[in-house]
Amino acid sequence: MKAVVYKGPFDVAVEQVPDPTIQHPNDVIVKITSSCICGSDLHMYEGRTAAEPGIVFGHENMGIIQETGNAVKTLSPGDRVVMPFNVACGFCKNCQRGFTGFCTTVNPGFAGGAYGYVAMGPWVGGQAEYLQVPYADFNCLPLPEGTDNEADYALLAELADVRPGESVAVFGAGPVGLMAAYSCVIRGAAEVYSIDHVKERLDKAAEIGAIPINFDQGNPVNQIKDLRGDGVDKGVDAVGYQAAAAGSSAAGGEQDEVPNIVLNQIIDVVNPTGALGIPGLYVPTDPGGVDENARNGALSINFGRLFEKGLRLGTGQCNVKRYNAYLRDLIAAGKACPSFVVSHEVPLIDARDAYIKFDKRIDGYTKVILNP
Amino acid sequence: MKAVVYKGPFDVAVEQVPDPTIQHPNDVIVKITSSCICGSDLHMYEGRTAAEPGIVFGHENMGIIQETGNAVKTLSPGDRVVMPFNVACGFCKNCQRGFTGFCTTVNPGFAGGAYGYVAMGPWVGGQAEYLQVPYADFNCLPLPEGTDNEADYALLAELADVRPGESVAVFGAGPVGLMAAYSCVIRGAAEVYSIDHVKERLDKAAEIGAIPINFDQGNPVNQIKDLRGDGVDKGVDAVGYQAAAAGSSAAGGEQDEVPNIVLNQIIDVVNPTGALGIPGLYVPTDPGGVDENARNGALSINFGRLFEKGLRLGTGQCNVKRYNAYLRDLIAAGKACPSFVVSHEVPLIDARDAYIKFDKRIDGYTKVILNP
Amino acid sequence: MKAVVYKGPFDVAVEQVPDPTIQHPNDVIVKITSSCICGSDLHMYEGRTAAEPGIVFGHENMGIIQETGNAVKTLSPGDRVVMPFNVACGFCKNCQRGFTGFCTTVNPGFAGGAYGYVAMGPWVGGQAEYLQVPYADFNCLPLPEGTDNEADYALLAELADVRPGESVAVFGAGPVGLMAAYSCVIRGAAEVYSIDHVKERLDKAAEIGAIPINFDQGNPVNQIKDLRGDGVDKGVDAVGYQAAAAGSSAAGGEQDEVPNIVLNQIIDVVNPTGALGIPGLYVPTDPGGVDENARNGALSINFGRLFEKGLRLGTGQCNVKRYNAYLRDLIAAGKACPSFVVSHEVPLIDARDAYIKFDKRIDGYTKVILNP
Amino acid sequence: MKAVVYKGPFDVAVEQVPDPTIQHPNDVIVKITSSCICGSDLHMYEGRTAAEPGIVFGHENMGIIQETGNAVKTLSPGDRVVMPFNVACGFCKNCQRGFTGFCTTVNPGFAGGAYGYVAMGPWVGGQAEYLQVPYADFNCLPLPEGTDNEADYALLAELADVRPGESVAVFGAGPVGLMAAYSCVIRGAAEVYSIDHVKERLDKAAEIGAIPINFDQGNPVNQIKDLRGDGVDKGVDAVGYQAAAAGSSAAGGEQDEVPNIVLNQIIDVVNPTGALGIPGLYVPTDPGGVDENARNGALSINFGRLFEKGLRLGTGQCNVKRYNAYLRDLIAAGKACPSFVVSHEVPLIDARDAYIKFDKRIDGYTKVILNP
Repeated sequence: MKAVVYKGPFDVAVEQVPDPTIQHPNDVIVKITSSCICGSDLHMYEGRTAAEPGIVFGHENMGIIQETGNAVKTLSPGDRVVMPFNVACGFCKNCQRGFTGFCTTVNPGFAGGAYGYVAMGPWVGGQAEYLQVPYADFNCLPLPEGTDNEADYALLAELADVRPGESVAVFGAGPVGLMAAYSCVIRGAAEVYSIDHVKERLDKAAEIGAIPINFDQGNPVNQIKDLRGDGVDKGVDAVGYQAAAAGSSAAGGEQDEVPNIVLNQIIDVVNPTGALGIPGLYVPTDPGGVDENARNGALSINFGRLFEKGLRLGTGQCNVKRYNAYLRDLIAAGKACPSFVVSHEVPLIDARDAYIKFDKRIDGYTKVILNP
Repeated sequence: MKAVVYKGPFDVAVEQVPDPTIQHPNDVIVKITSSCICGSDLHMYEGRTAAEPGIVFGHENMGIIQETGNAVKTLSPGDRVVMPFNVACGFCKNCQRGFTGFCTTVNPGFAGGAYGYVAMGPWVGGQAEYLQVPYADFNCLPLPEGTDNEADYALLAELADVRPGESVAVFGAGPVGLMAAYSCVIRGAAEVYSIDHVKERLDKAAEIGAIPINFDQGNPVNQIKDLRGDGVDKGVDAVGYQAAAAGSSAAGGEQDEVPNIVLNQIIDVVNPTGALGIPGLYVPTDPGGVDENARNGALSINFGRLFEKGLRLGTGQCNVKRYNAYLRDLIAAGKACPSFVVSHEVPLIDARDAYIKFDKRIDGYTKVILNP
Repeated sequence: MKAVVYKGPFDVAVEQVPDPTIQHPNDVIVKITSSCICGSDLHMYEGRTAAEPGIVFGHENMGIIQETGNAVKTLSPGDRVVMPFNVACGFCKNCQRGFTGFCTTVNPGFAGGAYGYVAMGPWVGGQAEYLQVPYADFNCLPLPEGTDNEADYALLAELADVRPGESVAVFGAGPVGLMAAYSCVIRGAAEVYSIDHVKERLDKAAEIGAIPINFDQGNPVNQIKDLRGDGVDKGVDAVGYQAAAAGSSAAGGEQDEVPNIVLNQIIDVVNPTGALGIPGLYVPTDPGGVDENARNGALSINFGRLFEKGLRLGTGQCNVKRYNAYLRDLIAAGKACPSFVVSHEVPLIDARDAYIKFDKRIDGYTKVILNP
Repeated sequence: MKAVVYKGPFDVAVEQVPDPTIQHPNDVIVKITSSCICGSDLHMYEGRTAAEPGIVFGHENMGIIQETGNAVKTLSPGDRVVMPFNVACGFCKNCQRGFTGFCTTVNPGFAGGAYGYVAMGPWVGGQAEYLQVPYADFNCLPLPEGTDNEADYALLAELADVRPGESVAVFGAGPVGLMAAYSCVIRGAAEVYSIDHVKERLDKAAEIGAIPINFDQGNPVNQIKDLRGDGVDKGVDAVGYQAAAAGSSAAGGEQDEVPNIVLNQIIDVVNPTGALGIPGLYVPTDPGGVDENARNGALSINFGRLFEKGLRLGTGQCNVKRYNAYLRDLIAAGKACPSFVVSHEVPLIDARDAYIKFDKRIDGYTKVILNP
């Protein structure tokens, strides 16, 4: 089958690779209909991880069941399904408690697995024609038949823990940040601030009812406090370790990186007793880090300030399984349309060009779906 | 001052009563600008409680601070404020844990106080020109200056505990039921069913995005299960002990009462592991109960079914203080407009006529605000 | 193999039945080392359910893995395991959210399955030499090798939701009630009251640090309020629908049954804003119910009082999987020894006699483990 | 009256200061019977904060009500009471939600107040004969009459959020760390590790059932992982910013300080999906910090590791009001005796000597109560 293969920094190719097969009785094979390029794929693409050439990318996958292992109970060929990016078993200590992003079964020696991602286990990615899905009864979420809302379902993502009436600052208006802001709006937040410096992204934020803040026009913390006369209840870091300094170019690989800037800004902007959610990626080893500390994943955090304010902080990969059935139902009921974040849908065969443009954020590339 | 005084079953009058005064250093006097008639006032109005003639009604009150006691810290004359219907001290064991509907200080020998309500303590109601508010720093919620959103703020009510993507059935589309349905919509429910048999109410439910179910057209549980092919995640009983049987007249006092009908219907319609919320009023003694059991507040509940489904159930007066600041911020941000439930605003002086029409649900009376 | 087979009301026999076999790739066969007789087995034994002759009893099972299906990942022959009484798949909507007592996969058309229990699915009980366990990676909890703490592990049961410093009244001091009281003690409750009228049970309650209350010596609610000068924070009904009136004989089948007595007593004894936990069994149809309502699982509940106090209430089968790993670790660390509730360990072959004595509560039979 | 007055680094004196008076109708004056010296007093004592000479120390206070303001409702002269170290109003946005450690009323411009502590508002400390307590109905917790359990009640401290059966590592076995470990034991933790290098402290940890780990004998993370073959579920940092490197002298002021060592160790020792609780003090400005970053409260944190493990983290002053009534009831019921941490009770007049010895950890000084 055809698949997107990593060749080295800033280089992917669509190549022929072996078709996946049923390897365990709980497996299914899915014929991919949509697979997204995620901002976290760019970390690998840019050579900012330990990923070796040869890996097939793609962890946001949906499609049609092609074949089922003989232990699979609830799925049949022809079923339309979407999979969390996490690969999980459903029965280990972490999965049992809902922490499906930290499964200890699927990636021995580590807590957490994913499709097509460095260090996340042996699972081949879905930017391809077919995908092997293990523990399929657990990992496949059934969708309504047909092709309605294809792009919406491809984006089943997290609903942040925000209460109605709260105010939230979401740093980063890439796909993860926009989805986080959108979730806050859906959950009844009173005010959602969306911080970025890419015009197209800030426009999309405004479209869904968030208040756009351009950090090239001044410290975003001060901008928000000036508007509100106060900080906010909750802060979200949807940027991660490749954070850009104000005024730097928006293009990947060329910006001035300040890896702790967003963390210290959310500490600043959130009111005492508030909470910080950090879906943006931080890594323990970064070959391209700006200094020795950054290369080892150590960041200078204003911990005294954090403590004085009594803030809580949650980190780590989302546990998608916890909420994706609810989001599916919101989409089916017409209450959520996350596909607004998608800027381009392109054939799988054109993936190389899509990676180049998405990485450079040119031609309005903010979120890409590949269609095999 | 003028106030709405209970004279006996189906009879209120606007009469002259003594002006309230500061009786404790933590008191304030509020000049009332809006005071709602609540469906629970009708329980007293109809003689279905132990209320004695002479009581001044009114527990949904807002206005302008007129005078402050010498221990009051954060409020000044001229401040615009709204008060929860609960009267609470802020420091007893229950208030400390957020159960401000069950204060043990303000109504000695009982847990819970309210303005102008039988058995809820000595607090005079606010369907009047002025109101004494105790523990004012705790009980008064400051509002933005001016007169914007007057009717919205007058309705600061509860946000039900619903998660995004869930389905909910709300029995009763009176003001409490409509507000509960509206809260579910704001919080991101996928589907909200609103059950009643009064046309104007069902129309309002449809307006805010709920799915209206008329129980005169068949068992509402079956109607919902037919539409969904399944039950719902959460059920809300916003009706209480004066529940009407299907087909009975809508007018108060003339309907066929079946006090346990809604309770057993929500047990039926909610899926296993789901939750039941019961803001509708049930009372331990009801002089007008349909039989001896009902008169003692004992109802026949399908407990075996409830247990088999593993349902959870929460009851009791709302603890308004927990969320009214958040709802205020939603209103101020233009994200919530609860005043859609208000059918009429009338001068205080016309309260007698308003009670008659609201009680009979004639001339479209579904929710009335009195303006002194 | 030999197994305990239900022959009809008040009659079981140890008979030869077919050996279980692997029927699905996720199954294992367990060689039983211990299987308890549960108080809820007596509901079937006494003919108080729809159970038909021929059913093999036993839902509290532990043993050694004998054989594994070819999809089983984490278990091998020779592993020592214990199983929750619930049979669950691990991947349906309810299991995913931790409600493993309400699995929708293992008992089609119903939410919830169990071994050897009427209406709980096709699963044969474990009061036998061998047991088929489906979805074995999910349902089997591994135990330390060897035979240490055999009786403790056989009793992995629920830890009630009690906070340190709270006061709790647990109605019923049979095995479930004693375990609930013991859990409260372990979790740091300040005072635990244990209500029963069987001397041996009240003695055991005192042994673990609970305060015994004999309901034959007066209304237990009054006894507790007299001791404390107040009600309690939490109430637990570990009795269920076959509740005995005060003064009635302790022997099963001969007591005066008052099915709603305990429910109304916990409503009485718990303070406003408190919570009621109801692990005791209530059923939607009871062939031996005291009246027409009871036969349909409808009970007269003091709902007005419940509402006035703002009580919360949780019901249903325990979701054992949620906590059994934690309780295993407490036992392994020597911090919990639930085997104190066991009065007798007898060979499987003597099960008939054990049922007779346990049902009559004679010869000190309070909890029995069968050893094949 | 006599009081402990800060004179400058490493210098306090017992001096005559003005008696406190009722300054607001909600105030009371308490005659102090016990006031503890807290490890956080030593931060000021050692000159490691911005505290100016003249401040009266003492935030862990109990005594007898001497006089009440005219708005006080529930307290009378003669009542025995204990006060949280936080000063709180009970009605601001933070207090309402239980965050009484972050009151916005009592210390204008800052969230949080305390008695006798730098930057925590104008409140005079209780290492003195009398104490002014504002918002007394809210801040005073009534105790049983008499003098029983005086030392126990003086130590009403936090119960960490630990679930039965979990494993916990508590860094620091000073009073806060010992109390945290003790709380975990009371709440039913399966294993509690207590890390320190002072022999007397480790002995006390062993006494209450914790497993002592001496960090002078090797990296405590490795020691724990070697013992368990795994990390732990929860980690507690009860040390704070003056953390000592392994092998350094135990005496205050002379040790090798490594301010981020404990934070990075708890990140290391806690398993993925676990939680970190940080009651140990971190400050935004530290005049005596080991380097420029430390002086500004910025610490190098292994954030990539924290993220990869998906850990949660809670910080800040305890909100004592949330749980002190429960702990009082545990003490009254004989289920908790926190006074085991007290090494010395000395007359107020001897406070100077007690500070010297406690600061140097000589003569077994681990926790001191001053009795006026």
